[in-house]
Amino acid sequence: PATFRPSEHQHIRYNPLQDEWVLVSAHRMKRPWQGQVEPQLLPTVPRHDPLNPLCPGARRANGEVNPHYSGTYLFDNDFPALQPDAPSPGPSDHPLFRAEAAQGVCKVMCFHPWSDVTLPLMSIPEIRAVVDEWASVTEELGAQYPWVQIFENKGAMMGCSNPHPHCQVWASSFLPNVPQQEERSQRAYQSQHGEPLLMEYARQELLRKERLVLTSEHWIVLVPFWAVWPFQTLMLPRRHVRRLPELTPAERDGESPGAALDGCGSGAPTGPEAGANWDHWQLHAHYYPPLLRSATVRKFMVGYEMLAQAQRDLTPEQTRTYESSSRLSHAAFSVQ
Amino acid sequence: PATFRPSEHQHIRYNPLQDEWVLVSAHRMKRPWQGQVEPQLLPTVPRHDPLNPLCPGARRANGEVNPHYSGTYLFDNDFPALQPDAPSPGPSDHPLFRAEAAQGVCKVMCFHPWSDVTLPLMSIPEIRAVVDEWASVTEELGAQYPWVQIFENKGAMMGCSNPHPHCQVWASSFLPNVPQQEERSQRAYQSQHGEPLLMEYARQELLRKERLVLTSEHWIVLVPFWAVWPFQTLMLPRRHVRRLPELTPAERDGESPGAALDGCGSGAPTGPEAGANWDHWQLHAHYYPPLLRSATVRKFMVGYEMLAQAQRDLTPEQTRTYESSSRLSHAAFSVQ
Ligand SMILES: O=P(O)(O)O[C@H]1O[C@H](CO)[C@@H](O)[C@H](O)[C@H]1O
Ligand SMILES: O=P(O)(O)O[C@H]1O[C@H](CO)[C@@H](O)[C@H](O)[C@H]1O
Repeated sequence: PATFRPSEHQHIRYNPLQDEWVLVSAHRMKRPWQGQVEPQLLPTVPRHDPLNPLCPGARRANGEVNPHYSGTYLFDNDFPALQPDAPSPGPSDHPLFRAEAAQGVCKVMCFHPWSDVTLPLMSIPEIRAVVDEWASVTEELGAQYPWVQIFENKGAMMGCSNPHPHCQVWASSFLPNVPQQEERSQRAYQSQHGEPLLMEYARQELLRKERLVLTSEHWIVLVPFWAVWPFQTLMLPRRHVRRLPELTPAERDGESPGAALDGCGSGAPTGPEAGANWDHWQLHAHYYPPLLRSATVRKFMVGYEMLAQAQRDLTPEQTRTYESSSRLSHAAFSVQ
Repeated sequence: PATFRPSEHQHIRYNPLQDEWVLVSAHRMKRPWQGQVEPQLLPTVPRHDPLNPLCPGARRANGEVNPHYSGTYLFDNDFPALQPDAPSPGPSDHPLFRAEAAQGVCKVMCFHPWSDVTLPLMSIPEIRAVVDEWASVTEELGAQYPWVQIFENKGAMMGCSNPHPHCQVWASSFLPNVPQQEERSQRAYQSQHGEPLLMEYARQELLRKERLVLTSEHWIVLVPFWAVWPFQTLMLPRRHVRRLPELTPAERDGESPGAALDGCGSGAPTGPEAGANWDHWQLHAHYYPPLLRSATVRKFMVGYEMLAQAQRDLTPEQTRTYESSSRLSHAAFSVQ
């Protein structure tokens, strides 16, 4: 039988953080692409648009007028998916019809007063201000809620309809599916191996050097062995950090690869249980660009992926040298 | 405190088939939509295009010429994500770097010789031929492979670049993530409650009458209580059927709601273990259209959804009367 070569022979890989498999079929890249090609250039965005509800001094949907902010600006989402006071659906009458209460808060955070910048274009002190604001909103909402999700939908392809640089913060009274699974996996790994899963993983990747994208004094950025999206990356601090507010000033600073990749992150669950033992948890940021093979050809995660299992057409090792990934205009980004 | 009303108060719902939660925030529909609006009308598709590789008599990417087929037409995908002979990656050297062998077959099935029809526009005998072909390909590939995934990516929004009516069949040597979870859930339910999860679920929905879309002598179509996509539906046979080939002639016939909704389905795992006890499994078909509130406004499942948990802006009960869902031009459809 032929010798196994990952870039030629399909195989499945296990994601130990989310306990699921991905089908890698790199030989499929040979197929010609006749489908949709996305426009590469962003439309020119004016620095200030008085009608854009995220700009300083503009009027928002609820009638409020934004201050003339000069740094970051955090405010309540005018159309929140989570509100603090929703009543409970009450007990279920059947095990197949279970609904539970959900409370929470949705905020929007503008990174900068100008609409024509993105994180990688901002100065080091400006980026530092964003990281500090992430740490403080995590602390503030984390005092009450067990999960504070910070994420950015970047670009129209990702359902973002406002070009002004911003992210969202959704805090919830429940641990959502993905962090719940990450919590289970990290807890089980620690109890079996005596150290955090992502600490050992980072150490191995530094040794293997096959999937590293960037390394600095404080951070490592890599394409995970189990990546689902072709240009997906994972960012990890070098030392053991459970949550964003624990980051030192040096770790928060703009030279960090985090800035280059649009951000750095939040961590272990918070809320009333924040004081429990979360040593198995390691702060990390996920970056999922919706691309197939380049910045203009989209990977559709559709029938097979939604209904059976994620499938990708390039190996993680093949995509790690994709230098422009740090400046991609479309991605979902989050820190957890 | 206020009385709980599902269409006004956010809550989470449990999906007992896939063991995960969805956040339902129906009050959010009040938000204005300023984002992308999808073109409603499909471009006119010629009945026959000699350059379309799915048409009768056309040349495919691998140089082969299609026969002048007059019914369904099944052939090997020219760019298969799964091939029958990929070598194994061999044993893993570390628990965080696990890869395993994946073998399989990918086929394409044309539903009809004409490019300008879709299943709901076809005649009853023509639809019956498709269902029979699904049953026979399940039987054929299921003799060797434990999972045969039949799915359709319908429309450009779903990454489908060829308008000719067709579906795909991917058979694999492994049970993919979603059916693996459905298998676990159905097995556990049966062992706890002594009957198949989806049989009890269908019975309850027939009693509750809140989420039924269509019912016929042999089939039930409903919006599941735990639906993630706004116009998602689930189709179930009335009697206990484990796999597609078990369907009776009457159940396969075109009057079935299945035809109206673009298809009907495959079931329990197959392959060498097909003879084991699969009584906990019930055949069902999933239908996921990528819509937010109408056929032209897309629901983006992006940052929060990819990284935390699925979220929807309409309750399942609100969407069940969306009559045109059966003729939607974009969806992911599968039977399992
Ligand atoms: O129909 P194709 O070209 O094989 O491919 C399409 O369906 C596949 C299975 O859902 C996806 O992996 C591809 O991203 C999509 O473009
Ligand atoms: O930024 P918005 O308008 O709140 O909404 C966007 O992000 C949300 C969270 O990922 C998604 O649920 C919406 O579908 C998307 O359009």
